[in-house]
Amino acid sequence: MKIVIIGATGTIGLAVQAELAQRNEVISVGRTRGDYQADITDVASLQALFAKIGRFDALVATTGAVHFGSLEEMTPELYQIGLADKLMGQVKLTLVGKDYLNDGGSITLTSGVLSEDPIRFGSSASMVNGAIDSFVRAAAIELPRGLRINSVSPGVIAESMPSYGPYFRGFLPVPATKAALAYSKSVEGAQTGQVYRVS
Amino acid sequence: MKIVIIGATGTIGLAVQAELAQRNEVISVGRTRGDYQADITDVASLQALFAKIGRFDALVATTGAVHFGSLEEMTPELYQIGLADKLMGQVKLTLVGKDYLNDGGSITLTSGVLSEDPIRFGSSASMVNGAIDSFVRAAAIELPRGLRINSVSPGVIAESMPSYGPYFRGFLPVPATKAALAYSKSVEGAQTGQVYRVS
Repeated sequence: MKIVIIGATGTIGLAVQAELAQRNEVISVGRTRGDYQADITDVASLQALFAKIGRFDALVATTGAVHFGSLEEMTPELYQIGLADKLMGQVKLTLVGKDYLNDGGSITLTSGVLSEDPIRFGSSASMVNGAIDSFVRAAAIELPRGLRINSVSPGVIAESMPSYGPYFRGFLPVPATKAALAYSKSVEGAQTGQVYRVS
Repeated sequence: MKIVIIGATGTIGLAVQAELAQRNEVISVGRTRGDYQADITDVASLQALFAKIGRFDALVATTGAVHFGSLEEMTPELYQIGLADKLMGQVKLTLVGKDYLNDGGSITLTSGVLSEDPIRFGSSASMVNGAIDSFVRAAAIELPRGLRINSVSPGVIAESMPSYGPYFRGFLPVPATKAALAYSKSVEGAQTGQVYRVS
C-alpha cells in the first residue's frame, strides 16, 4: 500500500511510520520536515500536496494543535485555535484527500482520550476530540467507492509525559508503539466509522 | 428559581418553558421574539443581554443552527456555520453567562443524537453535537462556585417530523414534552458533566 502520513515527524507519527513502513510504502508529510511539507489549515496547500503525491491507498493524520488553558481564561478566540487546526485541519485533509484515494482506501484521524475523560485546562481538547470522533462516525456512512474512515483516540503518550505529565496525573501512559497498532488496524484492517481507543 | 431560556420560542424551547414555568420564573430569549432578544454568536450581544437580566439560577440553551448537506458537497465554510452557531454560540453563552449565575446554578446545552447515530447529510451536526457533549464533560470539572453544566442530546423531535422525517427514517420520534424532562433534570437536579440522551 502507498500510505501518506500527515504529522509524520511527531511522536505518534514516527511510531506509525515505523509500524507501517515494515510492509508499505510510506510518504511522510510535516509542517516543516518530512518528504513533503503542507499546512493542514490551508486547503490550497493540501490540494498542492496531493497533486504532487498523486493517488494513494491510505491517509493518516497524526497532527493538530489545540490551546490548553483554564476554563476561566479560555476565550472564543482560544477555542478557535483547536477548531481551526486539529479539527478543521483534519476535516480539510478528509475533504481534499478523499478524492486522491484509490477505491477501498482509508482515512485515519487522531482524536484523544479527553473527549470522555477530561482534565483541567483541557476543555478545548475535549471539544475538538469529541467533534472528530463524531465526524468520523458520520463521514463513514457517506464516503463513496468503499472508502473508509476511522479515528484513533489515544491516551497520553508515554514519550510525552515529561511535558504533559503534570496535566495527566493518574492516566496510564500509552507507548507510541502501542498507539501505532490502532493506526495499523485502521489502515490495514477493513472497519469504518470506528473510534479506536488506546489506553 | 430564575431561569433564562435561550431559544425559548423554538419547538424544544417552548416545551422546556412549559415544563419549568410551572414552578419557576422563566425568562425567554429568542433571536427575534421572547422577553429579550440576543444573537448567541455575538459576545457583545450576550453581555448586553445578561447585563439587562441580572443574576439568575439557570441558563438553558435550546438553539443553534448547523448546515445539513451531503459529505460530497460539504466545504470548510459550510462546516463553519455549525461551529460558529450551534457549537461556539452555546460555548459563548457558557463563557459569558457563567459569571451571572448564582452559586450552585446550572447551564444546560443542547446537542443531539447524531453524535452517535449518524444520518446522511448530517456530518456537520454529528461533529457539532459530539463537540458539545465533550465540552460539557470537560467544563463541568472546572466551573467555580458549585456551578453545574450538562447537555441534553435528544433524538429527532416528533413535532419536527414533517420537515425532518425523510432524513430520520427509522428513528423513534421524541415528543418535545419528553425532551423537556431532561432539561428539568439538569436544571432542577444536582448532577454535572452529564449528557442526557432522550430517545
